[in-house]
Amino acid sequence: MDSTSFEPTVGETMYSRASDLFPLCRSITGDGVRQTLGYLQDFLPDMTIHEVPSGTPAFDWTVPDEWNIEDAYIADEAGNRIVDFRAHNLHVVGYSEPVDTWLILDELQNHLHSLPEQPSAIPYVTSYYVRRWGFCLTHHQREQLKPGRYRAVIRSTLAPGSLSYGELILPGSETTEILLSTYVCHPSMANNELSGPVVTASLAEWLMRQPTRRYTYRIVFVPETIGAIVYLSRNIEAMRANTAAGFIVTCVGDERAYSLLPSRLGNTYTDRVARHVLSHHAPDYREYSFLDRGSDERQYAGPGIDLPVVSIMRSKYGTYPEYHTSLDDLSMISPAGLEGAYRALRTCLEVFERNAVYRATTLCEPQLQRHGLFPTLANRANDSQARNILNLLVYADGQHDLVEIAERIGVPAHVCADLAETLLSHGLITLSEESGKQQLA
Amino acid sequence: MDSTSFEPTVGETMYSRASDLFPLCRSITGDGVRQTLGYLQDFLPDMTIHEVPSGTPAFDWTVPDEWNIEDAYIADEAGNRIVDFRAHNLHVVGYSEPVDTWLILDELQNHLHSLPEQPSAIPYVTSYYVRRWGFCLTHHQREQLKPGRYRAVIRSTLAPGSLSYGELILPGSETTEILLSTYVCHPSMANNELSGPVVTASLAEWLMRQPTRRYTYRIVFVPETIGAIVYLSRNIEAMRANTAAGFIVTCVGDERAYSLLPSRLGNTYTDRVARHVLSHHAPDYREYSFLDRGSDERQYAGPGIDLPVVSIMRSKYGTYPEYHTSLDDLSMISPAGLEGAYRALRTCLEVFERNAVYRATTLCEPQLQRHGLFPTLANRANDSQARNILNLLVYADGQHDLVEIAERIGVPAHVCADLAETLLSHGLITLSEESGKQQLA
Amino acid sequence: MDSTSFEPTVGETMYSRASDLFPLCRSITGDGVRQTLGYLQDFLPDMTIHEVPSGTPAFDWTVPDEWNIEDAYIADEAGNRIVDFRAHNLHVVGYSEPVDTWLILDELQNHLHSLPEQPSAIPYVTSYYVRRWGFCLTHHQREQLKPGRYRAVIRSTLAPGSLSYGELILPGSETTEILLSTYVCHPSMANNELSGPVVTASLAEWLMRQPTRRYTYRIVFVPETIGAIVYLSRNIEAMRANTAAGFIVTCVGDERAYSLLPSRLGNTYTDRVARHVLSHHAPDYREYSFLDRGSDERQYAGPGIDLPVVSIMRSKYGTYPEYHTSLDDLSMISPAGLEGAYRALRTCLEVFERNAVYRATTLCEPQLQRHGLFPTLANRANDSQARNILNLLVYADGQHDLVEIAERIGVPAHVCADLAETLLSHGLITLSEESGKQQLA
Repeated sequence: MDSTSFEPTVGETMYSRASDLFPLCRSITGDGVRQTLGYLQDFLPDMTIHEVPSGTPAFDWTVPDEWNIEDAYIADEAGNRIVDFRAHNLHVVGYSEPVDTWLILDELQNHLHSLPEQPSAIPYVTSYYVRRWGFCLTHHQREQLKPGRYRAVIRSTLAPGSLSYGELILPGSETTEILLSTYVCHPSMANNELSGPVVTASLAEWLMRQPTRRYTYRIVFVPETIGAIVYLSRNIEAMRANTAAGFIVTCVGDERAYSLLPSRLGNTYTDRVARHVLSHHAPDYREYSFLDRGSDERQYAGPGIDLPVVSIMRSKYGTYPEYHTSLDDLSMISPAGLEGAYRALRTCLEVFERNAVYRATTLCEPQLQRHGLFPTLANRANDSQARNILNLLVYADGQHDLVEIAERIGVPAHVCADLAETLLSHGLITLSEESGKQQLA
Repeated sequence: MDSTSFEPTVGETMYSRASDLFPLCRSITGDGVRQTLGYLQDFLPDMTIHEVPSGTPAFDWTVPDEWNIEDAYIADEAGNRIVDFRAHNLHVVGYSEPVDTWLILDELQNHLHSLPEQPSAIPYVTSYYVRRWGFCLTHHQREQLKPGRYRAVIRSTLAPGSLSYGELILPGSETTEILLSTYVCHPSMANNELSGPVVTASLAEWLMRQPTRRYTYRIVFVPETIGAIVYLSRNIEAMRANTAAGFIVTCVGDERAYSLLPSRLGNTYTDRVARHVLSHHAPDYREYSFLDRGSDERQYAGPGIDLPVVSIMRSKYGTYPEYHTSLDDLSMISPAGLEGAYRALRTCLEVFERNAVYRATTLCEPQLQRHGLFPTLANRANDSQARNILNLLVYADGQHDLVEIAERIGVPAHVCADLAETLLSHGLITLSEESGKQQLA
Repeated sequence: MDSTSFEPTVGETMYSRASDLFPLCRSITGDGVRQTLGYLQDFLPDMTIHEVPSGTPAFDWTVPDEWNIEDAYIADEAGNRIVDFRAHNLHVVGYSEPVDTWLILDELQNHLHSLPEQPSAIPYVTSYYVRRWGFCLTHHQREQLKPGRYRAVIRSTLAPGSLSYGELILPGSETTEILLSTYVCHPSMANNELSGPVVTASLAEWLMRQPTRRYTYRIVFVPETIGAIVYLSRNIEAMRANTAAGFIVTCVGDERAYSLLPSRLGNTYTDRVARHVLSHHAPDYREYSFLDRGSDERQYAGPGIDLPVVSIMRSKYGTYPEYHTSLDDLSMISPAGLEGAYRALRTCLEVFERNAVYRATTLCEPQLQRHGLFPTLANRANDSQARNILNLLVYADGQHDLVEIAERIGVPAHVCADLAETLLSHGLITLSEESGKQQLA
């Protein structure tokens, strides 16, 4: 990150995109999702936007009616808008049915949601599968309400339409796939959730720039839960056959922490790589239990599905006070926060791409001096490289992949991959097999 | 436990039975054992009492002569009984041969046993396989003895007879068995050992009340060591072929502690269930090593036998000061102490009966609302149930049994079994296989 | 160790031999090695001394020219020897080419090595594969050097010759082998390294004294690195086929510590035995990682070789301040230090010789009294023996070898072997199989 550069850093780019997308009113269906996908398509031109009609069955679920909203407010008797959707789209309960009615305050209260413990936050409330309407407001606002009559207006439509999602397949030399999935249904919140789509988009751009890719990448932008279920219902056969690893990308924007949500059994190839990368990238990261899950791993690793997905996050959903309120705004995330998560995830992808099982070609240690690999001028850095080379060679036994070797010898896997390239060019190791395939069913 | 009920609690029933049986002079053979078994037969009418003649070989052992005792005392020159079997049957060394002789104090001392560190306790001493006679007394009593002549009288018989044991087989729908074994050879002690027989009897009554049983239960009341060896010598083939789990029931009456003595290798199905149940029933239970064994697991898990038996105890034999003395009396145990152990063991049996491997029938999470399983009124208890249901579903993968799932999701296995019944009735899971069979050789 | 004996202890013998060998100027080739091997051959008459000509290829390496040295010094203008090889053979860089030249101090400095942090130590420096010359001296000496002209004289030869090593094969009843390898290339240092050869020689003498041996012993005295590589290049097929266990014997002379350098993966039969023996012999021993390796396990467990070798050491090379300097002299080691390491290693060999898998012959516990194995006079030691017997019997299941049983029951394996002999003689166990074979590829 050169401070004199005129090019924005990847962190700055991601932050700028999150700022552009922030005002849109997203939900699990509707134009907010379409606008968001359209924005992403500008720099991910190969992304396909799919529309799945309301009423389409998906496993135990059915695609719901599409929801769109034009305006909403609560007005007092004088006609003053005292709660206004135009001021913040969290003010309306997601999927509220249309309404235009007068109520006295006591009746209105049944339709209001606020947080007494966080009196300046507007909560995020939705009701996708039970028809109702409601408004969310700060508790301070609510306490100002005086007895009297109020007009509640929601100009929404809830009618057959479709559920939209984006899908980008980046082919590799293998049909084996790595899944990246993120969600595009959250309105006007930043860490959870615009960080996921913008980090995923930048990872896709990085993958698109690579001259070759070993794995095929399946990159999915869906509304949470129903979107993942719909996506799986249409792609499960291919995903079961091909998925070697996967990440649910969510809550990747703040600077407070690093978090790992492991896979269902916690012992997949993805877990192994994620733990290894985080142990070097953010040694004080916190590992949660799969019981703490709460995003689309509920479906991708759900009953009968069980794909090997994990989440590498900054502050995990549900663990920070701003979560699911209007306080999770653009001040919650930063270019540096986004870029830290991006780098952790990108390093994982690099490790997947470069991991392999090698076998040493000589018996006993080779004479490194003869191969020009032993430092003539001894110093600490050189010593350490020679030691790493000898350690890598002794575990390059056709049994351990680079990630296992990296763990054993205490060196990041991507550094091991660099050393392996050097040793390969000197003929001191040979490729025994590509890794990762053994992960498939 | 309804305090207004006129029915005694199971704890009260067990305590009352222990009180009835306490005065009997039991040993490894003889009428005390027969009377004890007869008493138990009153409420376990299907129990068979077996008699095995003295001299019968049993593996490396032989059934010894039968011992009975009518009276015993040490009298002073004036004829006063200063140590009297009628006052406490621990006063005579078990299996003492008959004697009627005058001795001076110094000679008498060779036949006396007391505990200087516990001067008010009568120790429990036996000599089953070396013929001798002796008296046990409190150290206070012993210190009162003045030089002089004493008459030692033991009116016992030690002659060919038989060893008695009780056996109750409760058939289940499977031939696979669960073993409960306890011992009936200890005279006038309460935790070790009348607690074992009375808790075992109540477990048997509970099993008899069940409308159906999956497992066959082999419930055995034997004299310790020789009784277990004799029993095994007659039943080992069937037990080897059928035993899925087993418990040695001993030291289950006090309120001080919970203890687990694991199986020989510590990794059987019985260990797994016992640890799981105790982790919820008594999270601060203490796990001992099999090296600390000292009861009939020495035989049931002995060389060449190796049945998967564990002991769930309150205060383990050998670890409490009253152990093997007259202080282990009815004040050592209580209805609550007995009932706590009874419930721990009964919960294990419930878990064995209800454990199974299930498989979710839907792909992805089901829409719980649609199945009436998602709370419409949200509150903490409901939330927790929905979470438990989703957690159970995600691990109902045809690979993990309910006990493993219970461990993973932090919920007692019997609660998981309740949830599984609900999910089964909604068609959301299907039985993959009954558990426990894989434990057989 | 009887202090009134006229026989020296094994520790005294080892120390005396180290003292005899200390003054010789060893290197990886040359007469110092030959004299050392000749000295050892006096009491190991079956040892064969091999000579491998310079230029012989060995895997990635080639046997270098042979180096011998007659005299070396730095003299001042007055002809005074101010650094003199005759005073200490560490004064010359090992493998220095011959030189006889005048230099001014600044030029001379390029050929000098000293340790500013250890100003009274002469460092140990070699240059086997890059031709150069140099002198080592204490930093105090170096600081005394005044500007002026100096004469540097090294009367060495560096010419085709041979590399020498010693090999002693002690046949056992099995062709399966145990490897002991130590190195004979270090000049005038004591812990690292005369302790290794003298301890190895005493282990060989002990093995030669045994009436029978189960394993064949391959005992190797080589120059470090190139010697091990040459040895392996000539014997790898037999060693791969037969090696059950192995030890690199080095740094076994001081009294400060016990250390274990495990095998490459840390899980071989040798590791298991070494850890077990040390846990009783020196419970506070320190276990290092294979990443800390630095001796001939680099070759014996090297790429493509991977023999199951470990090092049991006192103070490990590289961890004590005297390491690789003139301070590692005869005051660093002691009879007691050598004997401690000797006993740890000898106990490992005893365990290998006596380890086996047994099976109890009776069902249930045997009646120990009937077999004369139960103490009639009870006391703590007897109790403990009876308990050990019963514990051994219950794990003598045809599955666990004596080392595993020893670990489980908390008793040294050699004590278990004694108990097993007693039980075997009473017919209470039977040999199931000899252990160790399963370790072979």
